Amino acid sequence: MPVASSRKRNREGTSIFRAATTASRRSAGHDKTALVRALAHTSMNVDIGNALSSVASPGISRAGLERIDEQVAVAHERIERGMADGEHGYEALNLPEKTDPDEIRTAVEPVADCETLVTVGIGGSALGAATIVDALEAQGDGTETVFLDNVDPAWVSRRLEGLTLSETAINVVSRSGMTAETLANFLVVREAFDSAGVDWTERTIVTTGESGPLRELADRHDLPSLAVPDGVPGRYAALSAVGLVAAAVCDLDIEAILEGAAAERKSLTGSLFECPAYAYGATAYALDGRGAAVNAMMPYAESLETFAEWFAQLWAESLGKDDLGQTPVRALGVTDQHSQLQLYRAGPSDKLVTFVTPQAHEDRPIPDTDVDSLAYLGDGTLGELLEAEFSATEASLAAAGQPNVRIELERIDAAELGGLLYGMEAACVLAGELYGVNTFEQPAVEWAKNATRGLLGGGEFEEADAVEAKTELRIER
Amino acid sequence: MPVASSRKRNREGTSIFRAATTASRRSAGHDKTALVRALAHTSMNVDIGNALSSVASPGISRAGLERIDEQVAVAHERIERGMADGEHGYEALNLPEKTDPDEIRTAVEPVADCETLVTVGIGGSALGAATIVDALEAQGDGTETVFLDNVDPAWVSRRLEGLTLSETAINVVSRSGMTAETLANFLVVREAFDSAGVDWTERTIVTTGESGPLRELADRHDLPSLAVPDGVPGRYAALSAVGLVAAAVCDLDIEAILEGAAAERKSLTGSLFECPAYAYGATAYALDGRGAAVNAMMPYAESLETFAEWFAQLWAESLGKDDLGQTPVRALGVTDQHSQLQLYRAGPSDKLVTFVTPQAHEDRPIPDTDVDSLAYLGDGTLGELLEAEFSATEASLAAAGQPNVRIELERIDAAELGGLLYGMEAACVLAGELYGVNTFEQPAVEWAKNATRGLLGGGEFEEADAVEAKTELRIER
Repeated sequence: MPVASSRKRNREGTSIFRAATTASRRSAGHDKTALVRALAHTSMNVDIGNALSSVASPGISRAGLERIDEQVAVAHERIERGMADGEHGYEALNLPEKTDPDEIRTAVEPVADCETLVTVGIGGSALGAATIVDALEAQGDGTETVFLDNVDPAWVSRRLEGLTLSETAINVVSRSGMTAETLANFLVVREAFDSAGVDWTERTIVTTGESGPLRELADRHDLPSLAVPDGVPGRYAALSAVGLVAAAVCDLDIEAILEGAAAERKSLTGSLFECPAYAYGATAYALDGRGAAVNAMMPYAESLETFAEWFAQLWAESLGKDDLGQTPVRALGVTDQHSQLQLYRAGPSDKLVTFVTPQAHEDRPIPDTDVDSLAYLGDGTLGELLEAEFSATEASLAAAGQPNVRIELERIDAAELGGLLYGMEAACVLAGELYGVNTFEQPAVEWAKNATRGLLGGGEFEEADAVEAKTELRIER
Repeated sequence: MPVASSRKRNREGTSIFRAATTASRRSAGHDKTALVRALAHTSMNVDIGNALSSVASPGISRAGLERIDEQVAVAHERIERGMADGEHGYEALNLPEKTDPDEIRTAVEPVADCETLVTVGIGGSALGAATIVDALEAQGDGTETVFLDNVDPAWVSRRLEGLTLSETAINVVSRSGMTAETLANFLVVREAFDSAGVDWTERTIVTTGESGPLRELADRHDLPSLAVPDGVPGRYAALSAVGLVAAAVCDLDIEAILEGAAAERKSLTGSLFECPAYAYGATAYALDGRGAAVNAMMPYAESLETFAEWFAQLWAESLGKDDLGQTPVRALGVTDQHSQLQLYRAGPSDKLVTFVTPQAHEDRPIPDTDVDSLAYLGDGTLGELLEAEFSATEASLAAAGQPNVRIELERIDAAELGGLLYGMEAACVLAGELYGVNTFEQPAVEWAKNATRGLLGGGEFEEADAVEAKTELRIER
């Protein structure tokens, strides 16, 4: 059965400007008898050593970091003011204190024993919830989760065909209650329940704004409903009912998620040298300005694959405006070492690679083999292999002068995940201040929504006219 | 039940330099009674109109295209020569003729009725197979497929726990037979079978090179085995046993996949204006040189999500060297309209967006609703919504001067998919010739493999030493 491994760490309180050589992974990795340690909760740490200009190009010098830290202090004041005043967007950073887990638990009570939960939502209305249930799957009650976040007809039909609807619950999420994809899918799902003779009004939870079609529908059918909090854009809503309903149905520890986030909130200070979240945001911003136009998010944990997608939305939709913004790329360790790593190491020096790596994890020994050339594997565990691969990849980039940052979690659990989500949101809000963009708008997304409505006859929208004028240059066989 | 929709098309043979205005999608989209047409097989077409400098910046002028076409002619001769001589890498483009589907069908016969197929492989040894079974899932026999392409211990354990091993078959793939992740996972899986009292030697297919540990093992236990073809790097091996064993076990039409690829092979000519694959490769190359350092692959079909991953490996590992290479980004329509689109439309002008869009697909009507503001949805189908979203996104980028290319498939079936995979491989090989890189090597991937082996005590590798020298700058709470 699985044994546990823990990566040796070198931690002596808050450390500024400490350059160190890590202990050999070769010896550290072979402590096969170690158990998962009952560590004090310390949450996310960040190591930006491999983004320094002494190591990497693009990179930032220590003097450059100190100059940016003055901007961080100003930005932090702005952020704190926005939070105190409950301003649009900044309000998201208040969620750990404001979200009421009891209210969510009460709302999901009627469907808590469902076998399958179908979340109908798109973008921020789905990704946060999916990130949480995927990351913590092992700690849940085994509820199957399906996310209908696309309108591909064949795919929607196939997902629905496989379900026992009498054991299925619906979690529909849209702030406006008007999102075309979400409402279309909800109508399809509702009809499937009707056709199967299952009363969907007994099995539906609604999360929406104060008014709009979904709110009317919840009122008319007396459905359990929760509010999308005011002033919180979808991509920042993971720590509200938007992200936590699915987690609660899966019986995950949503209280611990919020506590982890609240602990991370306490870490926000006026200096990047004291705040891991700001250190990450400021470093990413600084490296973009120095040429790292791409930010590859590469967790070394399969359960964080959806987190990388969530990060990509957060980063792209918040910072991608006014001709600015780093392009987020989703990668996965170790899988993408056999794919993207070639480009990251030997391609253009225009990337920051961000690793996320849990320090302790479940493990599994590699059985011995009778094949000589593979004997070295039989001395170890899958966890040690994973750690060696991570160390190799991190070193491979550093040795080639390609900048990278390491975000360390103690382990993957509810509290650590809450801290990670909050930390990345704070990092993104900080980066938005440093870029000087409006972090909380998404006009280009709205443009396409209007064009779609116009094309479908849902009103007059001038955006739809642009579709008529397509320039073609077709190459056919 | 599902009705069919087909996008109106405007096709009059091979078209060069034809600028046209498409018919209104508004009227085109509402032909709800149309059936899937029994179209003549025409395979992949490419529309590069929105990558012209008259539309987009970066963009390429028509004169620029003509100049590049002279290089395409030279590159095509080089490619044809490499194919004729069976040179390393170029040999991949001969696979449609050389792969023997009967041999694959015979090898999988002993496990053809398994409930679950576990493919143990990583990178090119997994992604091609996953791309095919995911794209064609609806046409298969319902075999569940699991791809163990990571060594995350918790994830591996959870994937294995859910399986009935007596109904499970193993498909292990590694050219060298030495790949650490693959062999470690294979040893773990083999032990799980032993523990469950199931004879793994009765349920294992091996695909590997002519020598090495896996080949020895196949010989010793008399396992059905297939060869990784000589001269074909993993990422180009989808159209060999490497990619087709899983498809054959799922009872997919591997003959049609190869036929579609063979048809695409016939389209390779010395001019980008006559060859869709080369038109794509040359346009991507030209735009990279003009500033589109990112290539976002965005299929409008959920079943092609894995294809986007496969493309990302192909593009990154083939072209990412000598400080060159576009960064591939995986996106998904319509889902990522609510996420990445903000960046693609309003962020830096450093991206080419590549759409893949099937012209005909299964459809599903959107039920009528009693909510007035949503009534417009009830007139349509999910397929029409998908098409309107695609048109809106394409237009939204063009209207903002952001370059994009459309790759059209008739539909998603075995032959079209074979053509698409072959076409993208040919596009990538062409781009490699234009860049002047060695498309078929991956030294940076090998670097990390050596470092990992060294760290695990699998031999002396100087790459492992780089891990010792990590520069730290830790920010902690």
